Amino acid sequence: MTFEEMWRSLLPVGRSRRTGGYLRSPYGTAERECFAWFADEAGARRMPVEYDGQGNAVAWWNPGAGPITDAVLTGSHLDSVVEGGAFDGPLGVVSAFAAIDRLVERDIHPTRPIGVVVFVEEEGSRFGLACLGSRLASGALDPADAAALRDHDGVFLSDAIAAAGVEPALGPSEVLERVSVFVELHVEQGRDLVDRGRAAGVGAGIWPHGRYRFDFTGEANHAGTTAMGDRHDPMLTYAMTALAANKQARRIGARATFGRVEVEPNATNAIPSRVAGWLDARAESADQLSALLEAIGTQAIDRAARDGTGLELTTESVSGAVGFDPVLVRKLAATLGDVPVIATGAGHDAGILSAAGHPTAMLFVRNPSGVSHSPAEHAEMADCLVGVEALATVLAELAG
Amino acid sequence: MTFEEMWRSLLPVGRSRRTGGYLRSPYGTAERECFAWFADEAGARRMPVEYDGQGNAVAWWNPGAGPITDAVLTGSHLDSVVEGGAFDGPLGVVSAFAAIDRLVERDIHPTRPIGVVVFVEEEGSRFGLACLGSRLASGALDPADAAALRDHDGVFLSDAIAAAGVEPALGPSEVLERVSVFVELHVEQGRDLVDRGRAAGVGAGIWPHGRYRFDFTGEANHAGTTAMGDRHDPMLTYAMTALAANKQARRIGARATFGRVEVEPNATNAIPSRVAGWLDARAESADQLSALLEAIGTQAIDRAARDGTGLELTTESVSGAVGFDPVLVRKLAATLGDVPVIATGAGHDAGILSAAGHPTAMLFVRNPSGVSHSPAEHAEMADCLVGVEALATVLAELAG
Repeated sequence: MTFEEMWRSLLPVGRSRRTGGYLRSPYGTAERECFAWFADEAGARRMPVEYDGQGNAVAWWNPGAGPITDAVLTGSHLDSVVEGGAFDGPLGVVSAFAAIDRLVERDIHPTRPIGVVVFVEEEGSRFGLACLGSRLASGALDPADAAALRDHDGVFLSDAIAAAGVEPALGPSEVLERVSVFVELHVEQGRDLVDRGRAAGVGAGIWPHGRYRFDFTGEANHAGTTAMGDRHDPMLTYAMTALAANKQARRIGARATFGRVEVEPNATNAIPSRVAGWLDARAESADQLSALLEAIGTQAIDRAARDGTGLELTTESVSGAVGFDPVLVRKLAATLGDVPVIATGAGHDAGILSAAGHPTAMLFVRNPSGVSHSPAEHAEMADCLVGVEALATVLAELAG
Repeated sequence: MTFEEMWRSLLPVGRSRRTGGYLRSPYGTAERECFAWFADEAGARRMPVEYDGQGNAVAWWNPGAGPITDAVLTGSHLDSVVEGGAFDGPLGVVSAFAAIDRLVERDIHPTRPIGVVVFVEEEGSRFGLACLGSRLASGALDPADAAALRDHDGVFLSDAIAAAGVEPALGPSEVLERVSVFVELHVEQGRDLVDRGRAAGVGAGIWPHGRYRFDFTGEANHAGTTAMGDRHDPMLTYAMTALAANKQARRIGARATFGRVEVEPNATNAIPSRVAGWLDARAESADQLSALLEAIGTQAIDRAARDGTGLELTTESVSGAVGFDPVLVRKLAATLGDVPVIATGAGHDAGILSAAGHPTAMLFVRNPSGVSHSPAEHAEMADCLVGVEALATVLAELAG
């Protein structure tokens, strides 16, 4: 199948007819259908598929007779956020198969094996931790911590893995021991390539990223009878903090978002007793990220004092800055000729593997909408094919 | 049983051990246990109990031989908001029985029957419509509209009624045809009596009250990769509107609250596509309420234009101002001597009956915390007994 045929065959899986958004929840029916598609594509190329104990899958090309070592790994993920787009994840997997087809067409016979990988739960949409599959496989996450994770329905990770037909065995994956380099192709999630007028680019690194929970506590009371001056309304402190986050991020060219809120009791006629808001913050450097959080926190504390509310701030996760292997980045840029080298604010499995010490790089494909995690995310077919060619060239170079 | 004994016997029903808050959901187990308590208290006084087709209950005292007519009705409700307090509702029911006991002790023999009523689903916590029982009984709500209501689990109102052991028959209640006047005693939900240093007061009326849904729509996008300037984030428009509501209500001495929020997709790493916020607004007059809504709406629209977001405003309900029967209010105030006459921002079954044309009044008992719809809501035992005496005096006067 051509790239376009593969793309079309995967396109309907897990797509909502109502919204056009994707619902490919990790280990769920639609994502499993994507894995069945993956196994079919691997089978069509006689690529044996191997699963690790979290359900990450690798299809091996040109594995040779002996044990696989020193392999080049490419691929991405097939899960989506709730109501996500078609490209985030799948573009890297479809492009990986298409790039291998290009090697065959170009009559290139690499000496090293190439693996096409699919990492599970990259988005963190089900168990709340992004890059769960690559974190476990690379040893970045303690299996005991992962074993305690539950989804919104209370299902434990291992039970979800087992229900998906994989024997659960959380922890470092033998697959990665066979790999010496990882290149992930991904649709761009911003407008950098659009602004540069370029179809593809090489990733330089990933911004540091923090997730913080702000718990604002107040006094539950009746919305009709409580005079405004007698209130301790945590919704007001939250609202001010959300506006402060936006202002402070603009000021220093960083990113700050309150996209998730939980209110208790969340009733129209009740002043809330508690509002929890989650801050997603990213900046060019760890120092900038700290300064951003401090500026937001200061405004939140000031407002809490005025509102007579309480604030507890919990750091849920901080990922340090990732700079991809500089030798590899230079090599890719040189191999591809005149391509831009760009940074991203988004986390990726490539960032996890890089942080775990694996030589890693990324390729990005232009997204004209600049939108991501939404059905509006897009890449033109012509740009996708530029991405496939670039990936094929990179694989040919790396697998020698 | 004395007032205090009755109070203590009802106190544990539906109380959460963890929070001390009450979970007496309409037609649910704890609220049915409250109804069983009600039937027991009625039985102990040989008061026959009658149920209407929504499950409202009346225990008749001194009904005489013939059909009941021209009765004096008192009572309140036994359901609570989620994590509510002990007093909101039950105080009026317990005080009603205690007031009848005081009539007996005072050797008073009224010529007219007295009914102790319990209205169902006063809080609207299960089916989303406050005063559901009194609205149906008084003909203020179309039974067909009520029949379409479902709770959070999708259960229809009639099925909930049937499951609670009452034959469902939604619509105007014969009970109210037998009644010529209604007096509801209720714990105060604000601090008016506290500020006046008085244990009890007579209700003058209920402020007009509106519930409005603000649907802010934006563009879902990735929190890490979308530059601040490229965003259309409805959370910011919502936050600004919540602060504007507070400011505008303070300015004119009204009440405005955003206590309920729903976010889509409500994910930490996603700029929301939609934020819905519910505004609860109350003011002294209908004109003030309109002015308040307009002022908040204007600020919301201004901010939406700056954020590049959309706003749709839906009026979910508006209850007009209720002035209790002025002759009755004066009579109660005269009967009780020197008591304050106060207005309230809270809705009550008394407001529904008053709007439906029944001569109606209320008595309020001081709440030292000023807090309501929370475990912190309170009334001192001495104040409760003042309320009982006042209610007994009023019943003796009205039932002649």
